[in-house]
Amino acid sequence: MSHLDEEVLKEAETREQTHDIYNEEGAVSAEFLAGVQQAIAEKDTAYLREEVANLHESELGDVIEALDYDSRPELVRLLGDEFDLTALTEVDEAIRLDIIESLPSEQLVSALSALDSDDAVYILEDLGDEEREDILAKLPFTERIRLTRSLDYPESSAGRRMQTEFVAVPPFWTVGQTIDYMREDDDLPDSFSQIFVVDPTFRLLGAVDLDSILRTKRQVKIEAIMRETNHPIDAELDQEEAAQVFEQYDLLSAAVVDNNGRLVGVLTIDDVVDVIHEEAEEDIKRLGGVGDEELSDNVVRAVRSRFGWLLINMGTAFMSASVIGLFDESIGKMIALAVLMPVVASMGGNAGTQTMTVTVRALATRDLDIYNAARIIRREAGVGLFNGVVFALLIALVAGYWFDNPQLGGVVAAAMIINMFAAAMAGILIPLLLDRAGADPAISSSVFVTTTTDVIGFFSFLGIATWWFNI
Amino acid sequence: MSHLDEEVLKEAETREQTHDIYNEEGAVSAEFLAGVQQAIAEKDTAYLREEVANLHESELGDVIEALDYDSRPELVRLLGDEFDLTALTEVDEAIRLDIIESLPSEQLVSALSALDSDDAVYILEDLGDEEREDILAKLPFTERIRLTRSLDYPESSAGRRMQTEFVAVPPFWTVGQTIDYMREDDDLPDSFSQIFVVDPTFRLLGAVDLDSILRTKRQVKIEAIMRETNHPIDAELDQEEAAQVFEQYDLLSAAVVDNNGRLVGVLTIDDVVDVIHEEAEEDIKRLGGVGDEELSDNVVRAVRSRFGWLLINMGTAFMSASVIGLFDESIGKMIALAVLMPVVASMGGNAGTQTMTVTVRALATRDLDIYNAARIIRREAGVGLFNGVVFALLIALVAGYWFDNPQLGGVVAAAMIINMFAAAMAGILIPLLLDRAGADPAISSSVFVTTTTDVIGFFSFLGIATWWFNI
Repeated sequence: MSHLDEEVLKEAETREQTHDIYNEEGAVSAEFLAGVQQAIAEKDTAYLREEVANLHESELGDVIEALDYDSRPELVRLLGDEFDLTALTEVDEAIRLDIIESLPSEQLVSALSALDSDDAVYILEDLGDEEREDILAKLPFTERIRLTRSLDYPESSAGRRMQTEFVAVPPFWTVGQTIDYMREDDDLPDSFSQIFVVDPTFRLLGAVDLDSILRTKRQVKIEAIMRETNHPIDAELDQEEAAQVFEQYDLLSAAVVDNNGRLVGVLTIDDVVDVIHEEAEEDIKRLGGVGDEELSDNVVRAVRSRFGWLLINMGTAFMSASVIGLFDESIGKMIALAVLMPVVASMGGNAGTQTMTVTVRALATRDLDIYNAARIIRREAGVGLFNGVVFALLIALVAGYWFDNPQLGGVVAAAMIINMFAAAMAGILIPLLLDRAGADPAISSSVFVTTTTDVIGFFSFLGIATWWFNI
Repeated sequence: MSHLDEEVLKEAETREQTHDIYNEEGAVSAEFLAGVQQAIAEKDTAYLREEVANLHESELGDVIEALDYDSRPELVRLLGDEFDLTALTEVDEAIRLDIIESLPSEQLVSALSALDSDDAVYILEDLGDEEREDILAKLPFTERIRLTRSLDYPESSAGRRMQTEFVAVPPFWTVGQTIDYMREDDDLPDSFSQIFVVDPTFRLLGAVDLDSILRTKRQVKIEAIMRETNHPIDAELDQEEAAQVFEQYDLLSAAVVDNNGRLVGVLTIDDVVDVIHEEAEEDIKRLGGVGDEELSDNVVRAVRSRFGWLLINMGTAFMSASVIGLFDESIGKMIALAVLMPVVASMGGNAGTQTMTVTVRALATRDLDIYNAARIIRREAGVGLFNGVVFALLIALVAGYWFDNPQLGGVVAAAMIINMFAAAMAGILIPLLLDRAGADPAISSSVFVTTTTDVIGFFSFLGIATWWFNI
């Protein structure tokens, strides 16, 4: 084995070791967790400081989530000042609140002071008003002002997510002065990719990327290499819209400005990635009929998040049932109708859900707009008719053969074509109308679409059968 | 109005102007589009170069998508060398392929040479093998080698998404030498936030952030400020797993290394943001029963993406129908059963979908693992039983009153409790088992869960009724 190979192997091993808190499936490994649990039980602070305190915030967050309920605050207490509060931004809200409530307020205050402002705001914003005021009052003046400024912006706004630490210099400084300033100032943000250029009242004039400072000679003035600020973001803009700006223009960070064009903070891509995730998560959950539920929620919270949707569904289910009730005599004379009617409804429900899924996503990503709406509606009509005819034939064959009644097959085929077409139209028009009316199509489309396909499915099938067989 | 106010207003107007290609809803504005269409029709190249060629790639992409089918390749031809091919990475695949096929191969080759390697690969990877080889053969040698290296990595791997342009320096250089090198080298990437430190064989030794170079004096050696490379990514790693590393550790960029630890490229957060989006999109579509469908797909493609799922659903619908068929005599004697049975099935289907949505998401984000699976199963059992009992009572009241038959209410209540519990168990156990078996729970859970709730709903309700009323 050559020297080089050995080195490679050694390096590979080292890399392995830095990740051994996880098992192969990406969960915290059982051995690591057992060691931590034991150390907590034995109050072995030295072990915890050695093995846990230096983990990356997200790793620490995973460990906290994997621990049992009582060990979590115990771990935080044992680590004391060594506990990186940032880890709490990586855990479920319920767990975060539990831990914060159990912390002595001095530890919380001193830990908060050490955080970047965006992380501190993230932790503070979930607390009750009184508790938050209490903690803010104990913070040093400048910290307090910074955090209060962020907290004064609306929930889920860019101002809430921004970091208030940034580097800003006047336009008449040279590259050399700027580099020296950065070398000497200790109060810089942890890492940054651009510096901002401001006038004496902090109005934003432009920005300079770090790599262009590095490529420029010392005597050049900042204003000579300054570029227009890419898409400054209004502090009151909703975080979802801010994320769309980041995505559209591939930004790494963006200046956040107040109503007067004054620089108040920086929004960075890592916060935006979290926002993108939250928003996609929200859409998926809303389409599935669950509210703002988290995995750590208990039975009561989970029931609360799902109850409303089930209640609405009960109402619509009885609506469909009453459509069936209209035809009870027909069913009494031909039981096969009762057997086949759920097939028609179910096929419509699924086809409608398909169209709705495509529509809701296209609206969320702004791919669906006035230019293509007409084309997409025509396309969905085509898909609905085509699938309607094909599945009408298939289902007619099976049903006709099953009940030895070709006419029944014809009736189910006619109902299928009607319902599959209705499903396609409901699947696209309902989300479009909800969106136009200002409602979130993800949250409410599902119930309208499946109710439509159930009602039309039952009504067309039972109605056509009643008319055709004259029963 | 003060001088300052005026200036603010003026600046606001300028900002407005840079965005006036969009209307208030975020779609390309009708006026702008009409101007472009007219210029294309009149072959007004000057207008197009002025108004369209300088748009940001994503804005240009939006304009292309908003144009009608024939105008798109015409616009690209008219812009000639002024057309930024990067815009094609921002449009739907179908539109991209149409435009590329219509481009003269010289224009395509020269435009590809101007792109960053990751964008060039993105465009090349969708082409047919022969066409791709053809274009690669016409590229300059170094470009060809670079792109081929990326294209040799598996589809959807980090190697495919990486940029092969990066800055790498030896450890014995000083900060001053490094800054001078960056000032003089013209062949640097467009923008970058870290530089890499490599040995003569390009094995990765470490990295230095640009801001730490800026804060360090010129005579300091790179190896003194070099840090361990954060989570270097194996070029063959799947892009989804690479994105998870970025998210977990809040990375802005990461080194991509081959099997021998040699630096082959850089993966940047903007590519990762796209991956995160694609993956969330994929989950939503799979849960909704649509395949890899795009909004620009025509009827044939859309039918193809949805047909399979509808076919499976037809099979399961007949399965549920045959369960009903078992009880045709009971239904003949008591038509109310046919009216109420869809209510039981529908409530179960919705409750099961809720649990399934939570489970599938938790599996995708790795929040659900061996530590909390047992707890979550217990929680879902609790939610299922609680909601089962509550809705059993509500539905029993309505049904008993409707049919003036309290015993029928009791029967429907019993069936509801059974089915809501079954829904909760199916909703969590089916995705867990599919995940364990290596299948994507998003793609296949839905059909299994709703089939389970339909079959159990019909069977329990009709079965209990048959037994209780002795029919």
